[in-house]
Amino acid sequence: MTAGIADALVTALGAEQVITDADIAAGYAHDEAEWAPYGRPAAVVRPRRTEDAATTVRICAEARVPIVARGAGTGLSGAANALDGCVVVSFERMNRILRIDTAESTATVQPGVINDHLRARAAEDGLWYPPDPASSPWSTIGGNVATNAGGLCCVKYGVTRDYVLGLEAVIGSGDTVRLGRRTAKGVTGYDLCGLMVGSEGTLGLVTEITVRLRPLRRAPEHTVVGYFDSLTDAGAAVAAVTAAGIVPSALELIDRFCLRAVDDWKNMGLADGGEVLLLSRSDLPGEAGRAEARAIQEHFEAAGAGYAVRSTDAQEADALFAARRLAYPALERLGPLLTEDVCVPRARVPEMLARIEAAARRFDTRIGNIAHAGDGNLHPLFIVPAGDPDAKQRAQEAFEVIVDDAIALGGTVTGEHGVGLLKRRGAAAELGPRVIEMHRAVKDALDPLGIFNPGKVFT
Amino acid sequence: MTAGIADALVTALGAEQVITDADIAAGYAHDEAEWAPYGRPAAVVRPRRTEDAATTVRICAEARVPIVARGAGTGLSGAANALDGCVVVSFERMNRILRIDTAESTATVQPGVINDHLRARAAEDGLWYPPDPASSPWSTIGGNVATNAGGLCCVKYGVTRDYVLGLEAVIGSGDTVRLGRRTAKGVTGYDLCGLMVGSEGTLGLVTEITVRLRPLRRAPEHTVVGYFDSLTDAGAAVAAVTAAGIVPSALELIDRFCLRAVDDWKNMGLADGGEVLLLSRSDLPGEAGRAEARAIQEHFEAAGAGYAVRSTDAQEADALFAARRLAYPALERLGPLLTEDVCVPRARVPEMLARIEAAARRFDTRIGNIAHAGDGNLHPLFIVPAGDPDAKQRAQEAFEVIVDDAIALGGTVTGEHGVGLLKRRGAAAELGPRVIEMHRAVKDALDPLGIFNPGKVFT
Repeated sequence: MTAGIADALVTALGAEQVITDADIAAGYAHDEAEWAPYGRPAAVVRPRRTEDAATTVRICAEARVPIVARGAGTGLSGAANALDGCVVVSFERMNRILRIDTAESTATVQPGVINDHLRARAAEDGLWYPPDPASSPWSTIGGNVATNAGGLCCVKYGVTRDYVLGLEAVIGSGDTVRLGRRTAKGVTGYDLCGLMVGSEGTLGLVTEITVRLRPLRRAPEHTVVGYFDSLTDAGAAVAAVTAAGIVPSALELIDRFCLRAVDDWKNMGLADGGEVLLLSRSDLPGEAGRAEARAIQEHFEAAGAGYAVRSTDAQEADALFAARRLAYPALERLGPLLTEDVCVPRARVPEMLARIEAAARRFDTRIGNIAHAGDGNLHPLFIVPAGDPDAKQRAQEAFEVIVDDAIALGGTVTGEHGVGLLKRRGAAAELGPRVIEMHRAVKDALDPLGIFNPGKVFT
Repeated sequence: MTAGIADALVTALGAEQVITDADIAAGYAHDEAEWAPYGRPAAVVRPRRTEDAATTVRICAEARVPIVARGAGTGLSGAANALDGCVVVSFERMNRILRIDTAESTATVQPGVINDHLRARAAEDGLWYPPDPASSPWSTIGGNVATNAGGLCCVKYGVTRDYVLGLEAVIGSGDTVRLGRRTAKGVTGYDLCGLMVGSEGTLGLVTEITVRLRPLRRAPEHTVVGYFDSLTDAGAAVAAVTAAGIVPSALELIDRFCLRAVDDWKNMGLADGGEVLLLSRSDLPGEAGRAEARAIQEHFEAAGAGYAVRSTDAQEADALFAARRLAYPALERLGPLLTEDVCVPRARVPEMLARIEAAARRFDTRIGNIAHAGDGNLHPLFIVPAGDPDAKQRAQEAFEVIVDDAIALGGTVTGEHGVGLLKRRGAAAELGPRVIEMHRAVKDALDPLGIFNPGKVFT
């Protein structure tokens, strides 16, 4: 059947759109989730048009062959990982920005458009697409939609689902449907558009996306930086900022482990300042922005910051945020990284960080922490030496303990990366059997043949 | 069976929770949608606790008796209208604000809490619940969730779904589930919480809701008013404001018909100013707010406003917005009102208004217009003399023509009131057979016995 499906696709779409060479296809077999298993695809289709995607779905439906959709493969949960004998659909060639509508402040794009490309194009028209995952230079809007991607400015501006107005999708029948709307508001029928966002490719292939845009921010952002002696103090600072009714445009945390890793690489002297670094921004215009930045600084100081400064200089701000940007690659130098993504109520951030430290000690595992602290969204980064199965085993146990701790604190097992393969146990524990049963019912209703990314999110 | 279900409910819940008197039950038989048909409920249950609602669902599921959920009955589409022999579940007694969490900026409420009560309670803690339907003094959060209610400030702050983080619901099995989350972000599984919002009671009974809150706005709002000689000029002003990257906190339109109706009632002299009134607000703090209000005024004047002023005086602003608030009751004095709720792309507002005028002429029907112009959400108000079947027939034809015009302009048949019974034909035309089939599949998956509000939204 494996050969059969590849042949059928080549016949229908032409050899140019279908990769059947096993070595080349292997490059499409997984995303960036360490540890997540993956199989060997029978073929990789790179459609140029929606109709090609629809043809692919019809052929796969006929043959009951699973379809795994793929953007840039920057995912961190294994959601884009191939199954043996599946067909991977890579949207790399459907990468056109179809329309920027300045009157309606919307953009309509193909799924393969890279996040930063959309942002740059929108800026030409004075508009802004806020969702800014760390992968924005590489990840695609289609992938962002599949995972409901977040980012730094979500603390103020929301996540991908908040921006997706409408989409075109190929469903299990091979039919192409339009979901959602093009208007600012609309309540006609169920929110099937929102249901598709974050469904990790399990309900259909998204072939076009219309997102709402905001006016481009023109005021300079104010950056506030604070060093703290303890995670508890930093957590208290985050809670104080929130409780004061301040909604910063970013509020990030970096722990000593990550600061040191950056220092070791770039010799920036970051870890000299303290144990924990908080980075915050205000984008309110004029005096309001100055006042907000000043208030953030005051809350940092009141919570015990040993050092707190603010700046409006863009270059200086970029340098300050470099620590955040460099943390991940700095840790990657130390070994393969597994990224956690738990999210807890903001007030529980200090306790969750304490539990992460406890898990690291208990399982003798190295864990650094970066966090979208203003959202309660933590990214413990596990460094696991390659070729050390014992260390990997210990890290896996710590990973699951942290997942359970997040649930115990009223949190969720994934804030923005998705369930994929890595968080299926945690998702089942968080949602419970009845809600998982509702997921299964919805999946069966919209994908009765079970061809879209089976086995991801839930089993 | 009708007697049987009432007896079974009384036995299980006690007579105190179940209304079986037909005359009293008749008061729960419909919402405020003129023309929408309704039947006679077999019983009305007024649960005090989630378990009572779950018991009701189990008994109705056993007997295959439809359940129609109901908030305050202020809906305008017939979604809460009873079916003959159904059980109405009125949440009027589940009206407690369970928790305001200031650390997380959330509120957890029972479905019967009145919108304005939540807003007032949140304000005590310096927090704000933005969705503000015109019915906010009476309508409930549960009803707002069922219809994904909007309001004046949605143009800047979004609609009900944007605020619902999580909810508790009784599903078709009689089981109680928790959907969504309590954290700022979260992508664990399908967005079943968002799917319930706006599903008009067709997927289950919502028994508890957790909403996110914003910091209370403390700066005085700037109000800008402009009179225009034509709908076209007013539409151009709306387009110019949007195109300039301005996001006002309200942008409302009132036509001469409504202005005169208010004048005839309150003698305010509103219609002396011009044909169309635009009302706008800016809530940016400090100098930014002054600058935004000034810019709005300049756009109004550039688009041809005969008269445009701005004010920061709260009392004056309230008086200016009184015309908006009074328009609906002023028109109600002229006869039974049927409220349209189409939403079109912002740039098509002038053309849509022209088509509404044309429909009014063609079908010899009196139509006034109020509109959330900044959203493109128009509310043509049909005045139909009681006891004039010909006038009603003509108005119904105009109503359907306007629905089709909205679709033709790339809009949607309902911006914020819901499909209910009145917009089912329009919804089917807008969504098309394949998307309606997806609705049916989701409905069957989550409500396999078809007991929740059958026949609403789609047939």
